[in-house]
Amino acid sequence: MHQDQQAVRNVLETLSSAIRAKDAAAAIATYADDVTGYDLAPPLVQSSVTMRDRASLEQWFATWDGPVRIEASDTTVEVDGDLAVAWSLRHMTGVKVEDGDQSLWFRSTVVLRRKSNGWKIVHLHESVPFAMDGSGIALLELAPEGM
Amino acid sequence: MHQDQQAVRNVLETLSSAIRAKDAAAAIATYADDVTGYDLAPPLVQSSVTMRDRASLEQWFATWDGPVRIEASDTTVEVDGDLAVAWSLRHMTGVKVEDGDQSLWFRSTVVLRRKSNGWKIVHLHESVPFAMDGSGIALLELAPEGM
Repeated sequence: MHQDQQAVRNVLETLSSAIRAKDAAAAIATYADDVTGYDLAPPLVQSSVTMRDRASLEQWFATWDGPVRIEASDTTVEVDGDLAVAWSLRHMTGVKVEDGDQSLWFRSTVVLRRKSNGWKIVHLHESVPFAMDGSGIALLELAPEGM
Repeated sequence: MHQDQQAVRNVLETLSSAIRAKDAAAAIATYADDVTGYDLAPPLVQSSVTMRDRASLEQWFATWDGPVRIEASDTTVEVDGDLAVAWSLRHMTGVKVEDGDQSLWFRSTVVLRRKSNGWKIVHLHESVPFAMDGSGIALLELAPEGM
């Protein structure tokens, strides 16, 4: 069980490292063939075709000047048999080519399945909350307490 | 396995029914003691104390005139041993006392654990995406294709 927890954490770390290094193939290799995503960006659902599309991931990498850093706070990992779920707050920082310095805290929930080729991500949910004051503004400047 | 899947679906249905009936105690009874939530509303993380607070849930119910309907589209349920995850798009409709008719499609990812008293929700992630055009607007008017 402890070993499985570590294996799941390694997959998440591999994904973060791949994004930091702008290595689209390595990022996509952490996804299962049937992955689906609820992403920060629209639409409501990202299909496996979109999520596994190397060209569009590379296009997104190109909007950043230098590395895209994603660091997780305390990650909860639950594993049973061949199913795992991990959730944490994540902090994305870097410099956008057109918009300069970025710093965004978001929530991440990741579901993994043990496949014949190891633990793979089958579902990814990333988001920020929105203001309930009628403005409909996404809350992009929140941070966890003490950060 | 099929039986566990059905039990998990029943918990989700119990939660939706409790919200529709504005029965705070019944809604909270679907949550584990150690539940945490990434909610549509801020803050980034809802603690178990907040999520299990009957008074604040009743306060939210009181902002609606009549029932709050939450219906799920196709729900994917994964179960292994005592761990389960379910995800789907959900459609919330009703009439707000101050703002009239509401209709919101959002993404829902729910993690459950089998406890001594049955399947309980340990983690809930609900969100909408936001516009990446620099406006920072939460996308409250999206709908799945064909809906």
